[in-house]
Amino acid sequence: MSAELISELVALLGPARVLTKKEDLIPYGFDGTAALNQLPRAVVFPDNAAEVSALVKIARARRMPVVTRGSGTGLSGGSVPVENALVACLTGMNRIRELDTRNLTLRADAGVITQKIFETADAAGLFYPPDPGSMKISTIGGNVAENSGGLRGLKYGVTRDYVMGMEVVLADGSICWLGNKCVKDVAGYNLRDLFIGSEGTLGIVTQVLLKLLPKPAARQTLLATYASMDAAAETVSAIIAAKIIPCTLEFLDRKTVQCVEDYARVNLPLDSEAVLLIETDGHPSAVADEAQQIEQIARANGALTVRKARDAAEAAQLATARRSAFSALARRRPTTILEDVTVPRSELAKMIRAVQAIALKHSLDIAVFGHFGDGNLHPTILTDERNAAEMHRVELALKDIVDAALGLGGTITGEHGVGVAKKPFLKQQLGENSHALLKMIKQSLDPLGLLNPGKIFDFPVQENHTPKT
Amino acid sequence: MSAELISELVALLGPARVLTKKEDLIPYGFDGTAALNQLPRAVVFPDNAAEVSALVKIARARRMPVVTRGSGTGLSGGSVPVENALVACLTGMNRIRELDTRNLTLRADAGVITQKIFETADAAGLFYPPDPGSMKISTIGGNVAENSGGLRGLKYGVTRDYVMGMEVVLADGSICWLGNKCVKDVAGYNLRDLFIGSEGTLGIVTQVLLKLLPKPAARQTLLATYASMDAAAETVSAIIAAKIIPCTLEFLDRKTVQCVEDYARVNLPLDSEAVLLIETDGHPSAVADEAQQIEQIARANGALTVRKARDAAEAAQLATARRSAFSALARRRPTTILEDVTVPRSELAKMIRAVQAIALKHSLDIAVFGHFGDGNLHPTILTDERNAAEMHRVELALKDIVDAALGLGGTITGEHGVGVAKKPFLKQQLGENSHALLKMIKQSLDPLGLLNPGKIFDFPVQENHTPKT
Repeated sequence: MSAELISELVALLGPARVLTKKEDLIPYGFDGTAALNQLPRAVVFPDNAAEVSALVKIARARRMPVVTRGSGTGLSGGSVPVENALVACLTGMNRIRELDTRNLTLRADAGVITQKIFETADAAGLFYPPDPGSMKISTIGGNVAENSGGLRGLKYGVTRDYVMGMEVVLADGSICWLGNKCVKDVAGYNLRDLFIGSEGTLGIVTQVLLKLLPKPAARQTLLATYASMDAAAETVSAIIAAKIIPCTLEFLDRKTVQCVEDYARVNLPLDSEAVLLIETDGHPSAVADEAQQIEQIARANGALTVRKARDAAEAAQLATARRSAFSALARRRPTTILEDVTVPRSELAKMIRAVQAIALKHSLDIAVFGHFGDGNLHPTILTDERNAAEMHRVELALKDIVDAALGLGGTITGEHGVGVAKKPFLKQQLGENSHALLKMIKQSLDPLGLLNPGKIFDFPVQENHTPKT
Repeated sequence: MSAELISELVALLGPARVLTKKEDLIPYGFDGTAALNQLPRAVVFPDNAAEVSALVKIARARRMPVVTRGSGTGLSGGSVPVENALVACLTGMNRIRELDTRNLTLRADAGVITQKIFETADAAGLFYPPDPGSMKISTIGGNVAENSGGLRGLKYGVTRDYVMGMEVVLADGSICWLGNKCVKDVAGYNLRDLFIGSEGTLGIVTQVLLKLLPKPAARQTLLATYASMDAAAETVSAIIAAKIIPCTLEFLDRKTVQCVEDYARVNLPLDSEAVLLIETDGHPSAVADEAQQIEQIARANGALTVRKARDAAEAAQLATARRSAFSALARRRPTTILEDVTVPRSELAKMIRAVQAIALKHSLDIAVFGHFGDGNLHPTILTDERNAAEMHRVELALKDIVDAALGLGGTITGEHGVGVAKKPFLKQQLGENSHALLKMIKQSLDPLGLLNPGKIFDFPVQENHTPKT
């Protein structure tokens, strides 16, 4: 990369918002995904869409790839740079622009922390449901890029279900606004939904218009423990069959329970094969009624214990058991690889058994937790990336897990994205024709392949891709 | 079009499934939209995706446009043929393929009638919420192509919110399956949502996988009448502010009430300026509580009368008042032009006043009804297409209505689609850059412009577009 390019970026943003020294670049070489790391050439901090547009044009003129990131909490390598990339870090774009209580919308810059959106809505008696595990530090732009899920997916859906509009900078630097405050809008193709979950490969989302809900008036949290995973699975089926859609229906396996208890001390019984965390919310009498039914269903399906939170503090403690699962597991071995397969809900017990068999087959330490109600599993491989032999077995196990999920009609990623980690498996899921369709879309929106290259699929890189030096 | 092309189609489908005589073609020259009519060159009735693929390839080889249709109930001209088009009518593809009660999904051919999907779900204790006005005759494929709305949009969303997957035939004849039964799936770009609402211009949807909900256990219907539209609007705001999201929140203006009463005799008070039809559903005690709150709110905001249905029969009668609005209005003058603008909910009262002023300005008979909770208005112009002078005033009024909606942050179409009717206004809403983006997508998926040409926007037609004769 020429010194002129840096000069142009400094002229645009000022020296404080352009990092080029190796020690400054290091934190931007990785995200939350194990074993991925690549230093970028420079990191810039734009303040608004006009600056993003300008820097995209500067990079494009020299065929320099642009990799967008927020807080870098991603779990599929979606924001890990490629060589010589310019990283656009949007964390400085962190203003909430508007809270419209009449239309129940909130407009925010892409760099706003997810938790701040939740809290701003909450303070106005409103509710932003998507709650990815990293919400205390993740940015809303990252959530939109990855279409993040969370613990409330079963009843409330995922990030996509709350994006009404967005400002997006395209590969040629043009700025588009997609969507509006209308609850219904069928004017033209739905391009907003195309950008959601496109992992920074089609455009750079700089602002989002979010839909909010009235805050549920009541909530009840329950924790049930089981001697077998099948009994837990039967409980979930019976709850749905009883026409109850809880907002949260999470599970932890024995290994996860042990790690969580060791880490967070929340009085989980260590001898249970499965723990379900269940939350129901809504109208107070509906919640009371549903909580009672859930308790009965859990007991009728062989729960060892059922704990109903007596107050908000106890509910928070029970939720902590699930929310701390990843951190608790991460303490056990040097490297934590968090899988994200999802299957139709009816196949979940089969999928869990398949993971247990795969752990045995490859002699690996795999804990399992996840969103039972969504069929979204997080088999978590506890390993050590310095151990080449073990890492080879991890590779084989990952492939087996993906094969098992696809064999059950599932997906290779429920909420973490394809990024780099799942790229080898995407065609197997989508089939030749659908996979080719993705590339047609990429070709039309980013023909030079400069936006977050190497993510989701390999896209032909132009000969002049390598920056001039 | 050469005789060989017809021979090829007959060889593919048999003579009974290929119509070419003028008298047979007439019913396929129009849809539910006033004043649009164009005879196709032929109509074919494929039975499955493989036949759709084959006919697309036959048409493509001769650069013949393909226009897909179901029952032809569209209200924006989305299925009106162009000259020399081959119409693919999918009404013969009408099988429900699977009802999966464990995963709450239903898979159906594109030609299945919407009502049949609702009834099949209902019989299993499940619920398919989208209920477009034409659901008794519309096909699910048409609903997906137009992303149809309905009366339950406020609480339950629109067709898009219930499509988990689809089989689609692309412009080159290749067949793709997009989506699956997973509640969460972020593997690759969301192309399913791109095809939903693309009005047959990007591909031909041949099968859909739909999401179902547990059937709400209870429902309560109320009808409130008002001496002023503002009082009705205040009621709506107050209901939302009370954190109640009714499943239905519809309104009729005085003119619509009079026509409906004349047509359906449901005892509506003829002197009211506005009528609200409100339904709440869900858990029985929540419904009872909400219905009581709604009644109090309506009265506190000046309702003249509030009627609460005592039983399902009375509820059905009250809903008939709203469901028959279009038919009732259509009896009044020879030509009925149904507008479909939508504004943010907070702007709805302003928008209704704007429509009333526009009717006066252009001396037109305009009734207004629609989905108050969604901000989705149906100003209905009662006119006569044989009266050129009046039709000119209609043109001017339509433009004024669109200008007013866009001025309030609205959209030119909430649920009927762009089709031919709204094409002149699309760029005004989207802006230059977003409008150009649509064409980029079309260019990449249908570069010859053969799929439903002339809808949504004008796309450069190839020189060799005109079929060889």
